[in-house]
Amino acid sequence: MMGSSDGFKMRIGVLRLGHRVKRDDRVTTHVLLAARAFGCDLGILSGDRDDSILKSLKDVTERWGGFFEMSYKRNWRKVLRDWKGKSVLLTMYGMPVQDKIEEIRGSREDLLIVVGSEKIPGDVYGLVEWNIAVTSQPHSEVAALAVFLNMLLEGLELKREFKGAKIRVIPQERGKKIVSLAKEHNAH
Amino acid sequence: MMGSSDGFKMRIGVLRLGHRVKRDDRVTTHVLLAARAFGCDLGILSGDRDDSILKSLKDVTERWGGFFEMSYKRNWRKVLRDWKGKSVLLTMYGMPVQDKIEEIRGSREDLLIVVGSEKIPGDVYGLVEWNIAVTSQPHSEVAALAVFLNMLLEGLELKREFKGAKIRVIPQERGKKIVSLAKEHNAH
Repeated sequence: MMGSSDGFKMRIGVLRLGHRVKRDDRVTTHVLLAARAFGCDLGILSGDRDDSILKSLKDVTERWGGFFEMSYKRNWRKVLRDWKGKSVLLTMYGMPVQDKIEEIRGSREDLLIVVGSEKIPGDVYGLVEWNIAVTSQPHSEVAALAVFLNMLLEGLELKREFKGAKIRVIPQERGKKIVSLAKEHNAH
Repeated sequence: MMGSSDGFKMRIGVLRLGHRVKRDDRVTTHVLLAARAFGCDLGILSGDRDDSILKSLKDVTERWGGFFEMSYKRNWRKVLRDWKGKSVLLTMYGMPVQDKIEEIRGSREDLLIVVGSEKIPGDVYGLVEWNIAVTSQPHSEVAALAVFLNMLLEGLELKREFKGAKIRVIPQERGKKIVSLAKEHNAH
């Protein structure tokens, strides 16, 4: 959740459209892991039902902490209709992110970010408040989502603490250090 | 290439380690497309040789413009040794990007960004100048690379023009608009 000095909290969700089992497994997982790591509160999978992805995101959240709610919804149009707040589609055909990000941040409403896979149903462009391009070049929905969130949250998401983590990385100049926090939690 | 007011140009490359044919096809393609879109000058593939990825990056550059040199190198340690400039490994175990990005940008030398796939050979941590974490959470090398480049180039890469493009997107509030520039080029 994005905090601000006056205590306002914006809820941010990611809706992944058009997931296809096997073919999209890794990219969809990257989309949802990036959503969690860069400050989203919830992830919604649409397209093929895929319980293994839901489970793997739940497992990551359980081990690495924080709050990230995962669900599957077949009817993504209903998800968009029922969303209380604003919505944005990330698409290379939209308006430049750098021209719109302040307007989006300034709306101070919950935000649903729609991320497609290869083909996007034509009506989705009209079902969201903003069509936003993170460059107008072909690249990656994972990259677009991460840069969008980094710009929206102005880098604050990089310093976020993930509460209730069982393991945590201690940043190193060289090599790896992971500490287990499980004992401390068990002691309570 | 990153320009600056005093005319200094920094060359930026991405070295993708440990590519595995089929299993990594899409993620490696996303890494390299993001490298191109977010301001890199060259991409080096290591791990399995995969000419279809090299070809697809060349095709994208030919159609969408700009300069992005792709090559395959089996011996990535030699690539690092021979690189004239600095190098950085993106890893969730490294130092926070927000604490180091000014130092990296300030080095004013060509920069090779090393991006691993799932397992990273242990010696790579010692072969680069910096180990850098874009959050210490598990997510995606595509996301890490894009956010790193966006921070390094301070958003200037979002406004970059891709010269010699055959097609270009005209940003729209709704829907898609692509224009073909081929005729103008033929006219010269």
